Amino acid sequence: MFELLDVTGTLVFAISGALTAIYKKLDLFGVYCIAFVTALGGGTVRDVMIGRTPVGWMLDIDYIYIITVGFLLSIVFNRYLERLRISMLLFDTIGLGVFTLIGLEKGIEFGLSPVVCVILGTLTATFGGVIRDILCNEIPVLFRKEIYATLCIAGGILFFFLQQLQLSDDVISPIVAIFIIAFRLIAFKYNWSLPIGSVFAKKE
Amino acid sequence: MFELLDVTGTLVFAISGALTAIYKKLDLFGVYCIAFVTALGGGTVRDVMIGRTPVGWMLDIDYIYIITVGFLLSIVFNRYLERLRISMLLFDTIGLGVFTLIGLEKGIEFGLSPVVCVILGTLTATFGGVIRDILCNEIPVLFRKEIYATLCIAGGILFFFLQQLQLSDDVISPIVAIFIIAFRLIAFKYNWSLPIGSVFAKKE
Amino acid sequence: MFELLDVTGTLVFAISGALTAIYKKLDLFGVYCIAFVTALGGGTVRDVMIGRTPVGWMLDIDYIYIITVGFLLSIVFNRYLERLRISMLLFDTIGLGVFTLIGLEKGIEFGLSPVVCVILGTLTATFGGVIRDILCNEIPVLFRKEIYATLCIAGGILFFFLQQLQLSDDVISPIVAIFIIAFRLIAFKYNWSLPIGSVFAKKE
Repeated sequence: MFELLDVTGTLVFAISGALTAIYKKLDLFGVYCIAFVTALGGGTVRDVMIGRTPVGWMLDIDYIYIITVGFLLSIVFNRYLERLRISMLLFDTIGLGVFTLIGLEKGIEFGLSPVVCVILGTLTATFGGVIRDILCNEIPVLFRKEIYATLCIAGGILFFFLQQLQLSDDVISPIVAIFIIAFRLIAFKYNWSLPIGSVFAKKE
Repeated sequence: MFELLDVTGTLVFAISGALTAIYKKLDLFGVYCIAFVTALGGGTVRDVMIGRTPVGWMLDIDYIYIITVGFLLSIVFNRYLERLRISMLLFDTIGLGVFTLIGLEKGIEFGLSPVVCVILGTLTATFGGVIRDILCNEIPVLFRKEIYATLCIAGGILFFFLQQLQLSDDVISPIVAIFIIAFRLIAFKYNWSLPIGSVFAKKE
Repeated sequence: MFELLDVTGTLVFAISGALTAIYKKLDLFGVYCIAFVTALGGGTVRDVMIGRTPVGWMLDIDYIYIITVGFLLSIVFNRYLERLRISMLLFDTIGLGVFTLIGLEKGIEFGLSPVVCVILGTLTATFGGVIRDILCNEIPVLFRKEIYATLCIAGGILFFFLQQLQLSDDVISPIVAIFIIAFRLIAFKYNWSLPIGSVFAKKE
């Protein structure tokens, strides 16, 4: 089940990257690269920073096949996929929840403190998109719009809170994933966003 | 003493990042991220490249608290801090001196050659700002304006020169830090800058 | 022989970076940095991801001298070098071939699968240029123009195909390098390029 979700997350992040690159009129190689870094960039940066090398995808090339599938789907069906924005959002959100959990677990595995684990979860889920935006020469959308990373952080805090209650990880993981996914969809529906950084100063 | 300076450097780099992000109208999460990478990005890249993992701030979460303080100060007082440009410059310069020394020391600790240590010192002091500018979609200010990194390099060379004179590190470190800080302030006052790269060609 | 080519590749990549930075009106330090990352960025990212740390150039500072030479040549002769575009292309192409081989070999040395080795070869040859473009605030040219990375991939595949034929690496390496170099020059002459990502959709 979890593995299926991991595959889904990787695939959808790859498609999200590929569609952005197609929209930016990159060539086929550029599209493939952006798909790749969007899907695997977050985990790669995480692995490099905690010293888990060679990084994950080098030891399990299934990820590369999944990204290739996402790339091909995007190339052939990109107009159709654009119209599927809502379904894409759902998949993207699944990726967000699953990747946050994976990042959290790697941090725990390396004996890092909860605060650092929450950062690693958020990084795993969001940094691929940041690299995508940098490569496409945009200010990362992550820093500008929507509740997104905030939910990863909230999910991470919930994870450690539930651990305090002595629940097993098998129970906690789905709760956290569902929490992130549900709130992301609600946030999207009601168009929630974080205030910009100068909000307090404005009221001075 | 040194630790106090390290805290000061981290705090001021975090504020410098946060103010840039607020100016760019990023949301609160974006501001926090930019504060984080500005303060810890240089050290993170250094640690990753020399293989000191998990990287430093993961093992000492005090850094995260310091950045959080810098973030909160920036959010609440950003208009006031903007007016404090000169004081900010002083703090920023302290960060520059201290971070250069920290980078130098890590290089020596890993048995790397002096040239590489000087690069690591410069990288530690300046790369956070480079990442900040990339994330904010600017050509890094480091490459365009003022004597800045040049002073880190000069400070690093001075460090190894003084070591040749058999001085102890306890004597060398403050000399190098004061050298960097003093020259940076003088450079700022007299508006020194490096010539642009095509300077020689122009005279052809 | 191989080492001479490695030196040539590093030198020419450094010049290519320096010329871009001069064109972008960066200051001398900025020009040096861009020369540095263009020449060594690909190998650095590769080493960090496979856990070969401290990264290569830290243990062999000859690379730093080579880059310094490239930097000085660019500063003094930049107008002349611009006119030498065709010769530069030849050298750049040698770098492409050699760096691909180096990346392939590091991957094999670390026992990684052929697919990953091909990615590492391509990364080593091309990622320095990607970092150069990001630092200069451009969408990486790699993703937009010409057959370039595609040839690294093709060369990598050829490498493993020839290995299946039981040829020794001493025979395979020059064949692969010549393959990449020859096709790159032909591609340049006939102005081949990859279709952009939305090509199939357009025909819908």
